[in-house]
Formats: sequence, structure tokens, C-alpha cells
Amino acid sequence: MLNFEFQVPTQVFFGEGAEKEVGQRVKEFGGHKALIHFGSRHSKQSGLIDRIAGYLHKEGIETVELGGVQPNPRLGLVYKGIELCRREEVDFILAVGGGSVIDSAKAIALGVPYEGDVWDFFTRKQKVERLLPLGAVVTMPAAGSEVAVGSVITNEDGMQKIPLNNRKMRPLFAVLDPLLTLSLPPYQTACGIADIMSHVMENYFSRTQNTELGDRLCEACMKTLIHNGRIVMEHPGDLAARSEIMWAASLAQAGLLCTGRQGDWASHDIENELSAVYDVAHGAGLAVVFPGWMKYVFEADIRVFVRFATRVWNLDPSQFSDERALALAGIERLSDFFTQLGLPSTLAQLGIPEDIIKDQLEMLAERAVKNGGTGQFMKLYKEDVLHILKNCAG
Amino acid sequence: MLNFEFQVPTQVFFGEGAEKEVGQRVKEFGGHKALIHFGSRHSKQSGLIDRIAGYLHKEGIETVELGGVQPNPRLGLVYKGIELCRREEVDFILAVGGGSVIDSAKAIALGVPYEGDVWDFFTRKQKVERLLPLGAVVTMPAAGSEVAVGSVITNEDGMQKIPLNNRKMRPLFAVLDPLLTLSLPPYQTACGIADIMSHVMENYFSRTQNTELGDRLCEACMKTLIHNGRIVMEHPGDLAARSEIMWAASLAQAGLLCTGRQGDWASHDIENELSAVYDVAHGAGLAVVFPGWMKYVFEADIRVFVRFATRVWNLDPSQFSDERALALAGIERLSDFFTQLGLPSTLAQLGIPEDIIKDQLEMLAERAVKNGGTGQFMKLYKEDVLHILKNCAG
Repeated sequence: MLNFEFQVPTQVFFGEGAEKEVGQRVKEFGGHKALIHFGSRHSKQSGLIDRIAGYLHKEGIETVELGGVQPNPRLGLVYKGIELCRREEVDFILAVGGGSVIDSAKAIALGVPYEGDVWDFFTRKQKVERLLPLGAVVTMPAAGSEVAVGSVITNEDGMQKIPLNNRKMRPLFAVLDPLLTLSLPPYQTACGIADIMSHVMENYFSRTQNTELGDRLCEACMKTLIHNGRIVMEHPGDLAARSEIMWAASLAQAGLLCTGRQGDWASHDIENELSAVYDVAHGAGLAVVFPGWMKYVFEADIRVFVRFATRVWNLDPSQFSDERALALAGIERLSDFFTQLGLPSTLAQLGIPEDIIKDQLEMLAERAVKNGGTGQFMKLYKEDVLHILKNCAG
Repeated sequence: MLNFEFQVPTQVFFGEGAEKEVGQRVKEFGGHKALIHFGSRHSKQSGLIDRIAGYLHKEGIETVELGGVQPNPRLGLVYKGIELCRREEVDFILAVGGGSVIDSAKAIALGVPYEGDVWDFFTRKQKVERLLPLGAVVTMPAAGSEVAVGSVITNEDGMQKIPLNNRKMRPLFAVLDPLLTLSLPPYQTACGIADIMSHVMENYFSRTQNTELGDRLCEACMKTLIHNGRIVMEHPGDLAARSEIMWAASLAQAGLLCTGRQGDWASHDIENELSAVYDVAHGAGLAVVFPGWMKYVFEADIRVFVRFATRVWNLDPSQFSDERALALAGIERLSDFFTQLGLPSTLAQLGIPEDIIKDQLEMLAERAVKNGGTGQFMKLYKEDVLHILKNCAG
């Protein structure tokens, strides 16, 4: 086990009807005028944003609204939010949405009290010091941004997608009301599950020795996701299954599963380039890239993949000729699971035209290793990433 | 799943050598003069307390010391600590020890800024408002008090042992350095493991429906404890195993395993009376009481006990005549595990003389249900507790 620090400072309020208390939460944390930041038109049309505004007004908190956050949230809207908050003298940011909305809200909260360009934080020109107080109402369990230290913003100028991690960027509170997830369309539900699974697997596939408790906590999350993922695809209205997925999404990013171990984020790095360039859904991209990454790296420490196959997928070692076959069967189960969720398994299925793929794989591989290689389970360079991408092509 | 709130505000610093940074931690949290509160003479004689004082002095923090905390920490010493802190104008409490020391430190931190009698908080005459800042260096993984909301203090006047839970009572930081646990004697190590297992099981044995993630997180902790518990009994110097146990102890009490479910603390309630009256080691008492409680209540919802038998103890249902036999075999495995750790399995083995047991079981049972029954998995009244205690007698 490696030395580590652990804390979950974000106050999580989980459960049916938790949305109704959001006004009190904002008040408790000192908000007088809040920006309600959201994404899809659906949030507005469904009446959710008006309900949230109502809860705040009831507590005497004024509101302004800014919608329109897209998946892979854009810097342009962040600038717009910062300007709006300054003009309206907003003192609290309330994100209502999934990871993209919360990430966008974090960037706005970071930018309001800073005189320069908020992009400076993402390009590491400036250190994170202070954010406007920030809370989140989660509508899509996936990124776990509501308890996480990070924000990933895409600069439209060159489609650069850059993550920024700082513990000060955690929301003060997160409202997790599973009722809000009942109306999520199947594809978004599936993308969310793939994203959560990936977050768990990024911690699980570690070369650190003596990490039994961490391994088992990851397995607990994965088994729960697999079981309940299958249930919600068949019964989208199953609140119990939606609840399990929602809690798993937050726990996967709360800093618990990474304690004492070095994870591997190569798949995320590769997918981030895919979604930056082609603007594909992050979870769908991960469903393509993760099994590809696994097949390329598993022999670097096959024991971890054998454990994955036996403990997560309950495969019986005696049914396989050797560890290699067993490990590959575990990876195959994961691919099958993503397919059952209705997710793509190749770049082509992801909607990227074949001729484009051929021409641009080199460029993608180069971008994924722009910081001098990626990955910890196995360090990957351009040729490695190119190999993985070619295998994912379709 | 039930609605819940979750937060781990305590900053955990885990790892080899973490003790060395305790001076910086106290400084970061604003301490100028600290009470170092500890228990056994061993802490002092081993040089640990002097080392800790040295780390604080290096950061310009003055120290005063108060040792002598006993298992089942006493109100008398708490009073002494409060007086000392006031006289010496202490502004930070640093607990160095296990659960008893940390519980005692919490009570002192609670009492210093309060004008009345600190026992008022335990008797619910007074609401918890404010504590002196408090940190902990853990030397015995067991109670998890370093991240928990509670303190249990024994009033020597009538040997009343009363728990007090309030989220304000969580330490600001917890230093978990597994090196400090290497010298723990086998019996204390075993008692710690039984205590941790009990904390997990108190959450696990729940009648709440649809708690898959929570169930699996509990199972992850139990399997880790069983595996590493056996290792440390054979190889007390195994740092990796000590580390797993230490992290499990904190996680078991961090508020994670109880999310969304109603646990059952009847075993703890019953054991608390045992250790209040006979001053036995808490973990040893639990090793006796918990299996006894299980055998009495398991049929109230046998599915939970079947899950325990199959998932935690890997028992194969096809090897048992029915669910009842399978459930009982799981309980038997737990008893065997406690025996392997060298823990008692009867009240007699716990060192309570047989004639005393006979005379006093009624009194104990009465005390355990003094708040009108105990338990949630199955509500227990005096006759039930008496039955359990009789079965534990030996």
C-alpha cells in the first residue's frame, strides 16, 4: 500500500426527494444569489430548473440561470458564466446536471474571483486559490464530479480538452436524488455506467502491491454496477437499481478507491482525445477504448486481470487452459457487458467515418501522449496508443 | 436504500512514517499549545510520546501531557484533563492511542469550553455545540474513533457506560501510521480485529432492502479482515497485513458502511454492559456476544445470514441440507475465526466467574434494554437478551 491522504469534505445528501431541500443547503452555505447552471433543454422543459429555482426563492435566495452546457463542456460558455456572475453579483454557483454541467460550474466558480483568464488555471499558468461557493444537484450518475477534485474543459480554439484537479474544487454539497435519474434515456444511462465502470477500473488496474481492501472495494462497486446496469437497461423505472448506480458513481470518484494505490488513466487520456476531436459521448468512447487498452496491456501483470476475471466475472479458472485465456475471457465479459448496454465496441460504431479514422489515428495517438507517454500499469508511448487505436478501429 | 447523508470531514493521513508529520498537522489546524493525551505506560516507555512531543516542539507548539487512559475510559480522567487544559490554556487536544484514548480526548475537548459538568452531554442534558480542536494519532486499529462521531465514557459512579454521538465530535485529522501497530501484543491485536469485524457486521446485518453496494462494501471489509487477521496472528511483523487492518478499522467507522441502511447495534449494547460491569476488553466481549446474538436472531431474516455464509465465508449452498444449516455454518465460521485469533467464546472464558454470571445475568439484561429494548434486525427485550447471555455463559 502506498501512503495516502483521504477526506470527503463534500456533504452528500442522498435519497428520494433530496432535491426539495436544495434551498436550505444553499442557504446553509451562505448563498444569497445563485447562478443555476444547467445543460440540456430537457432540464428546463421538464420543469426541473423551475422547481430548483422555486426551492431557492422559498429560502429568500435570488437566482439567475445559465443553461446550454454541452457534453465536453466548452470554455466559451464558462466565460459567459463568469461574466454573468460578475454582472449579477452572484455569490453561489449551483450546478444542476451531470459531470459536464458540474465541471463547467467549477470553472465558472474558479473564474469569477480571478482577474485574469480562467484558462490560465487549466494551462497551469495560475494556481487554484479560491472559488465561489459551489453546490451540485446531480441528474446523471456518471462522472462523479459532484464529489471529485477535477474539472475537464474543452477550449474550442483547437479543441483542447484539459483536466484540472485541485481539492479546493470539490463542491460544498452534492444532492443525489435518484428520482431525477428515472427519465434518463437508455443511451445516456449506458454511457454513464461505462464511465463509472471506467473510473473504478482505472483504480483497480494497478501495479501497487498489497492493496487488498482497495481491490475488494473496487470489486464491490463493479459487481454492483454490472448487476444493476443490466437491471436498469431492462427496467428503466427501477428506482432501487438507479439508486445503486447513482451512489456508485459518486463513490467511484470520492477519493476512496484510489487510496494506497497507483491507478492507470491511459484509457481516459486516449478517450479524452477522441471526444475532444470528434465530440463523441465520453462513456461511449470509453466502452470502445477500455477493452482495447486491456487487451494490449494485460500481460504486464496478468495476476490483476486473472483476479478481475475470477472475482468480478465469477469465471472458474479450471475452465480455462491457462491464465492468459482466463484473463482474456474476463476482458471479453466486460466487452459483452458494454454491448448488452447498447454501447459501441469499435471506433466505427462510435460514428467516426472509416476514412477519417485511417488518416487521423496517428494524430490522435500523438495527442494522447503529448505529456510524454501515458499510463502506469504499462507506460504507453505513441506507437502503443496507435496500436490500441488500430485494434479499436472496427 | 434509505435516504442518508455522507461526509468524511476528518483528514486522514495514512502510511509508514506519517507520525513524523503530526507537528505540521497540529500547526495547520491552528494549535499553539497541545494536550498530548495517551493511555498505557507503554506509549511513554517506548518513546512514542516523547517523539510526538518532539514533532510538535519542532513546529513551535508547546505541549502538556496526560496519560493513564484505561480501556473503557473513565469520567474521572476526563475531568482531570479538562482542568489541566484550562489551567495550562491548552488550545489543541492530540490523542495518541486507540479508541479509549480518542474517546477520552473527545470528552475533554467537549468539556473545556463548557462551563457545566461534561457528563451533562452524555446524559443528554446539554447539546453538543463546540469542542476544542482535536486530532488523533492512532496506535491501535479497532474502534475507528479517529473518524467517528462518537465517544463512550464510563462514569465510575455506578459504572454507567454511555455513548455520545455528534458529528461535531469528529477529529480534524487522523494520523494512521501502521508502523505504530507492529508492536501490538497478540491479544490486543485480536481484540481490535473482533471490534472492527463487529462494526462492519453491525451495518451488514440489516433488514433494509436494496442495499447491494453497501452489502458488498461490508463484505469487502470483512474478507480483508479475515484474511489479514489470520496473517498478523501468525506474522505480527507483517506490515502489509497490519496496514490493511488499520485502514479497515477507520473505514468501518467513517460513515460509509452505514449509508442507506439501518444497522443493528444490539451486540454492542449488550457488550457495553458487560465491559462496564466487569471491565473486560471490548473486542473480547464482542467475540463472545456477537455469535450468540446471531444464533438468536438469524431466522428473523435468514437471507442476510445465507449471504454472509456464501459471500463472506465462501460456503457452497449445495453442501448444506437447507438455508438454516447454511446460515448456522456461516455463524460457526465466524466463531471459529474468533477462536483462531485466540479470543474467548464464552462468558466464562472471558474471565467472569460462573457463580457471578448466574446471579447477574438478569441485571445485565435489564441494563442492556434500559432504553426500552435494543436492536433493529430483531427488536430485543429483556427476556431475549437474557436468553442470548445464557447461551453465551459457557
